[in-house]
Amino acid sequence: MRTLTGLRPTGQLHLGNWLGAVRPMVAMAGEGETFLMVADVHALNEGMAPDVLRQNVIETVRLYLACGIDPQKTVLYRQSDLPNAEFATYLMPFMGVGQLERSHAFKDMLANGKEANAGLFTYPVLMAADILLYDTDEVPVGPDQAQHVEYARDIAERVNHRLGNVLKVPNSILQPDVPQLPGLDGRKMSKSYGNGIMLTDDEATVKSKVAKLVTDSRSPEEAKDPQATVSLYMRLFAPEQYEGYLAGGMGYGAAKQLVAQGISAELTELQQRYAQVTEAQVHQVLQEGAARAWPVAEAVLNRFKRAVGLLT
Amino acid sequence: MRTLTGLRPTGQLHLGNWLGAVRPMVAMAGEGETFLMVADVHALNEGMAPDVLRQNVIETVRLYLACGIDPQKTVLYRQSDLPNAEFATYLMPFMGVGQLERSHAFKDMLANGKEANAGLFTYPVLMAADILLYDTDEVPVGPDQAQHVEYARDIAERVNHRLGNVLKVPNSILQPDVPQLPGLDGRKMSKSYGNGIMLTDDEATVKSKVAKLVTDSRSPEEAKDPQATVSLYMRLFAPEQYEGYLAGGMGYGAAKQLVAQGISAELTELQQRYAQVTEAQVHQVLQEGAARAWPVAEAVLNRFKRAVGLLT
Repeated sequence: MRTLTGLRPTGQLHLGNWLGAVRPMVAMAGEGETFLMVADVHALNEGMAPDVLRQNVIETVRLYLACGIDPQKTVLYRQSDLPNAEFATYLMPFMGVGQLERSHAFKDMLANGKEANAGLFTYPVLMAADILLYDTDEVPVGPDQAQHVEYARDIAERVNHRLGNVLKVPNSILQPDVPQLPGLDGRKMSKSYGNGIMLTDDEATVKSKVAKLVTDSRSPEEAKDPQATVSLYMRLFAPEQYEGYLAGGMGYGAAKQLVAQGISAELTELQQRYAQVTEAQVHQVLQEGAARAWPVAEAVLNRFKRAVGLLT
Repeated sequence: MRTLTGLRPTGQLHLGNWLGAVRPMVAMAGEGETFLMVADVHALNEGMAPDVLRQNVIETVRLYLACGIDPQKTVLYRQSDLPNAEFATYLMPFMGVGQLERSHAFKDMLANGKEANAGLFTYPVLMAADILLYDTDEVPVGPDQAQHVEYARDIAERVNHRLGNVLKVPNSILQPDVPQLPGLDGRKMSKSYGNGIMLTDDEATVKSKVAKLVTDSRSPEEAKDPQATVSLYMRLFAPEQYEGYLAGGMGYGAAKQLVAQGISAELTELQQRYAQVTEAQVHQVLQEGAARAWPVAEAVLNRFKRAVGLLT
């Protein structure tokens, strides 16, 4: 059983990423084979500047290692170190232009007025290559990523229909219900909204960010709404005081102080590990990950090339 | 000075290909570096069957060798043996979807009712990769291929504008005026029209095909139209009798006999060489060609990957 997850090299992770994605991944590691790919080729499509991309790949790996990803248990590699980009080109004929036009990603892009480059347009094919090149059984996805796996399944099925049983058809696994942590302003926590607490934020930064948590106008004495943003933070980061807080008798100021303390307590250990991970270690982890992923990719690539007529 | 030409692995060549493309190429070989690529990855986009593709690659190389391409003077390699497909993915962000929609190839495809797959849609990007990956100076083109080089130039200029002087901007060289040989029916000679004389046609086949050459209703005594299809064949394949034929006094039947003899005389030597080229030789030529092309491709690929942030 092989599971594959792709990581955008954002160079940063926020609390929401950690609770929703990274921590469950760490918990699951060791059950079957886990492949974790840093998607540097996808970053080209967004026009990420070269130095930023280079730095972000390193920072992203540092953060995942600090979060507890064990490169012995998890095959952690960089997309461009493996033949994903080559494989994507071979899969292009198995994807229709119409289907790409109907993809959520392309529609969102047009809606956001982004310039439509061919990389963004065809990126579901590259994503299919990312998945299919490793005989992936399962891809954990959030609700907004299910389509990527659907497209990969479509491609695999078309290939198999035409050429025999060549590619493994992957399944998407809808992520188990994880604590959904909204941003400071109550919207989804997102780097682009600037409403997140970053895993590398120091104590003072956490404190000043948490102070901005949206609140309603209830007085300290009143019972609190469990769906209020502060309440969601209290439940996760000050669980022992959570019931008392809900019942009433605690002001938002005091609650925020508890939340900030709780978050910093969680982050301290992580940040200590982060500080210890060197760039040289990152390169070594990526090199070893590539070496472990390589035989898997090569076997599938050659199987496909033989089936399609590119190899004898 | 490096020149690059791509060959479609059709597995067949007709007289028109030979006179218009292959013979000039053989004549030019040795002037600068000549790269000759068998475009097997492009063939995937057309849905060529695996066994046909495998066989066609071999037959195409056999034919070119029989035509006099000297693999010592010319670097002859198969596209999928080199990182062209990988490079194409990296170039995708430098091509606009709108520009692809405006390409002649895509418009023709839609006009012909072909199903639009993403490979056909993006194939100008793969073609740009084919050219740019080898620091190509010049690409000899027919009038209908000039756009491919334009697109490659556009991509190279966008890359260079954003990332510095990374890719060589190629020039297209409009093919020198070559004897234009129409098909048997007077239309352009084309495999798809079935109106061509193939380089592997034996004497009897040539004779029966030439018998079908379109003629007008002039009597043997009359002077002949130099633009008539038979005349164009006479000029090329029975040059000594051409003037007499034009002046009048020769019937079309006699002329066709001369043409058939002239063609078969030209083809005999070629077919003898063709019969002597073994499949093992083809594989060896392709292997040696790939080994010679590899360092060129690797240097450009790494230069690009460093510039774009995929390599340190």
